[in-house]
Amino acid sequence: MYQIAGNDQSLKDILKQRRQKLAQLLDFPVILWSGIPISRNFKANYYPFRASSHFLYFAGLNLENAVILLKNGKLTLFKDNPTPNNTLWHGETPTRETIARDIGADYAYPLAELANYTAKAATVAVQEINTYQQQTKLLKRSIFPSNTPEGIDLTLTNAIITLRLTHDQKALTEIRKAIAVSIEAHKMGMRATKIGQTEGQIRGAMEGVIIAHNMACAYGSIVTVHGEILHNQDYGHILTSGDLLLADVGAETPLGWASDITRTWPVTGQFSPTQRDIYNIVLAAHDRCIESMKPGVEYRDLHLSAALTMAEGLVDLGILKGNPPNLVERDAHALFFPHGVGHLLGLDVHDMEDLGDLAGYASGRTRSDRFGLGYLRLDRPLKSGMVVTIEPGFYQVPAIINNRDFREKYQDVINWDKLAKFSDVRGIRIEDDVLITDTGTEVLTADLPTSPDKIQMIIHDNC
Amino acid sequence: MYQIAGNDQSLKDILKQRRQKLAQLLDFPVILWSGIPISRNFKANYYPFRASSHFLYFAGLNLENAVILLKNGKLTLFKDNPTPNNTLWHGETPTRETIARDIGADYAYPLAELANYTAKAATVAVQEINTYQQQTKLLKRSIFPSNTPEGIDLTLTNAIITLRLTHDQKALTEIRKAIAVSIEAHKMGMRATKIGQTEGQIRGAMEGVIIAHNMACAYGSIVTVHGEILHNQDYGHILTSGDLLLADVGAETPLGWASDITRTWPVTGQFSPTQRDIYNIVLAAHDRCIESMKPGVEYRDLHLSAALTMAEGLVDLGILKGNPPNLVERDAHALFFPHGVGHLLGLDVHDMEDLGDLAGYASGRTRSDRFGLGYLRLDRPLKSGMVVTIEPGFYQVPAIINNRDFREKYQDVINWDKLAKFSDVRGIRIEDDVLITDTGTEVLTADLPTSPDKIQMIIHDNC
Repeated sequence: MYQIAGNDQSLKDILKQRRQKLAQLLDFPVILWSGIPISRNFKANYYPFRASSHFLYFAGLNLENAVILLKNGKLTLFKDNPTPNNTLWHGETPTRETIARDIGADYAYPLAELANYTAKAATVAVQEINTYQQQTKLLKRSIFPSNTPEGIDLTLTNAIITLRLTHDQKALTEIRKAIAVSIEAHKMGMRATKIGQTEGQIRGAMEGVIIAHNMACAYGSIVTVHGEILHNQDYGHILTSGDLLLADVGAETPLGWASDITRTWPVTGQFSPTQRDIYNIVLAAHDRCIESMKPGVEYRDLHLSAALTMAEGLVDLGILKGNPPNLVERDAHALFFPHGVGHLLGLDVHDMEDLGDLAGYASGRTRSDRFGLGYLRLDRPLKSGMVVTIEPGFYQVPAIINNRDFREKYQDVINWDKLAKFSDVRGIRIEDDVLITDTGTEVLTADLPTSPDKIQMIIHDNC
Repeated sequence: MYQIAGNDQSLKDILKQRRQKLAQLLDFPVILWSGIPISRNFKANYYPFRASSHFLYFAGLNLENAVILLKNGKLTLFKDNPTPNNTLWHGETPTRETIARDIGADYAYPLAELANYTAKAATVAVQEINTYQQQTKLLKRSIFPSNTPEGIDLTLTNAIITLRLTHDQKALTEIRKAIAVSIEAHKMGMRATKIGQTEGQIRGAMEGVIIAHNMACAYGSIVTVHGEILHNQDYGHILTSGDLLLADVGAETPLGWASDITRTWPVTGQFSPTQRDIYNIVLAAHDRCIESMKPGVEYRDLHLSAALTMAEGLVDLGILKGNPPNLVERDAHALFFPHGVGHLLGLDVHDMEDLGDLAGYASGRTRSDRFGLGYLRLDRPLKSGMVVTIEPGFYQVPAIINNRDFREKYQDVINWDKLAKFSDVRGIRIEDDVLITDTGTEVLTADLPTSPDKIQMIIHDNC
């Protein structure tokens, strides 16, 4: 859906800056497609439209079935005007000329004109097949998927990564808006939590806040008392005394910018001693990462420092045995913390993940095959202007801790009797969104507490 | 997402009945695909999965990437078992054997086996392109889109229409569940309505209820003070004294069955005299339709009776001039009521609309090109077991009433000065879901009032 930009000069200015920066990196034209709405169970029943992120970055608005040409710092919009039938059913929607004005386009033509402008242009393949077919048809060549681009498409992809890796003020303003709404949603979720409710009821309370602000969920919400199921998208369990509720819920602004927040809280409003012990270890890992973040720091080292903090804490509790650095070396931490400590955040919640690891991994680096590193989505030195998530977690994943090979491999370092005492801790994750600044960091999500005591206060503030 | 069926014998029984009925109509095998999740801005970020409705009708559960073979009343499930990696990230999900047991399948195989079972099988083309490509590849022939099937696919389509046109008890149970939640959502919306709120806030309150019940929206909600924009999916306006809020919001159960309800209420809690006058005309049209519904009645005649009631009412108010039947004959009612009076309801909110008009229009009938009939989605005699919507409306659509051709054509029948007095009525619609029974009807949505006084009471019940 078109979001009114009107006379938003800051949008026009920033779009101009972005395309001028792109022009400095490239000497060929670029064409980017927004995509078309995708049907649900029948053609006229659409999922909410979301333009391709690369298009959004340079075109600013969530325009259906639009194409932009970027050439020498100039912007050309290709879009058809609303038909009379469209006006009948959808009311007056902006004309191509209005949109062109709102995004500061230099030229604007109907889509049919696009075929005259495609010579020697690079693009990024979209995910949606109909538009992808348009791309190959109009560029008159094969286009590789966005995670394996070739030739000028690869050059373009690298240029886009250079730009999108760090955020300008407009992007940060949008991310902050998304975060503000996500924080409100999490607080609402905490206050709505009561024994006997379902996970779905808490999800409804949280997503209701996001919808009320005319935002969308940036990703499928996780709201579960089974946090040990990492990508849990069932919401049917009843909240029971002793449960921890893990909520990974984030809003996305109408212009497409994401947020990503996880909190874990006790449904009674009171952490048990065992829950508090583990929570504090996860929080220590979270805090240690954030304290050490600044430009130049390797994100991979943050991950390893989180792993080390987890290992130290679990040794202190007697769950793990041995020397913490050695435990991390052996990936023993990953038995309980099997994912990476975070990822890039921007227009996509996993920003630029459509490019595979081209954005997440610095040139020449590839994924490790180590159990404790293979799920790391980001392996680059931090730069001022990056926004990343920091999201350590502790989970008792049955598929891991009951796995015979793992049990055998790590039999000397796990105290199973001790672990059994922590059976009321199935899954805890604490996730914040962090901006790298010239001198260190700004925790963009800082208005949502992470400390157990402050979280308990919000839960008890049920009015 | 797989919804636990467990030992739901009623589901197994009804699925068996459905496929046995299908077997009586066909002498060739049928293969139906559920489809795969569709990505949003990058691959791992999915829209909520919704299986194809024809698959759901015979397989019962919202299974991702599954295929069923229906042959001689027997059901074969093709689905791959969860991988170890799936278990790591998604927890224990049901095996093929468990699913087969839950849906009463006679046989169950991995997807790779499907290629051995495709000879001479018919299918219905899905909307989503990757699965459609699988269909053509595995059936080794071209498959026409679902609204223009040919050969055995057309025979199958007509058989499915015969079955899905009327609902069995399991289907009705599901539709009633969806309706109960939609009614709760509408009541919540009415109670949440306050001057100064945005449309989005009311939408958030309503959809929050649907999410809290672990249901989805059956379609994109319309929640607007500009009801004259028929497919309005913006939610940014502020509720202002004198506005009517039109809410067209419906839930869908986890098994995929839809509901579809519209109410229109004053944001102050009090209809103005002009709003009440028009509201009562729409309500009279709605009530007259429902009173005359029973098996054998032509749905087209319901539409025309709604049109006549609207014309009579508008003549009484002095907005239209002339003899009401003549006005309807001239499509003058359609200036204010430009859409059809309703549609089939079932697994799709416009049930079987993926089949074009094959389901909505009885054999041999086609859409009228009359302004007042061309948007009618259903033209069949009513049958016991059908569920249809009844949703007359009154709108001052700028694209219609400011259209020069219309103004000229209808200049003798419209009193523009009179119409101007009703400027606080931009759009009103009242929509209920009605089951045709052997003797008449049951209004499935009857628990949500339609009368202005009762609606005002709910709004005033703000606590």
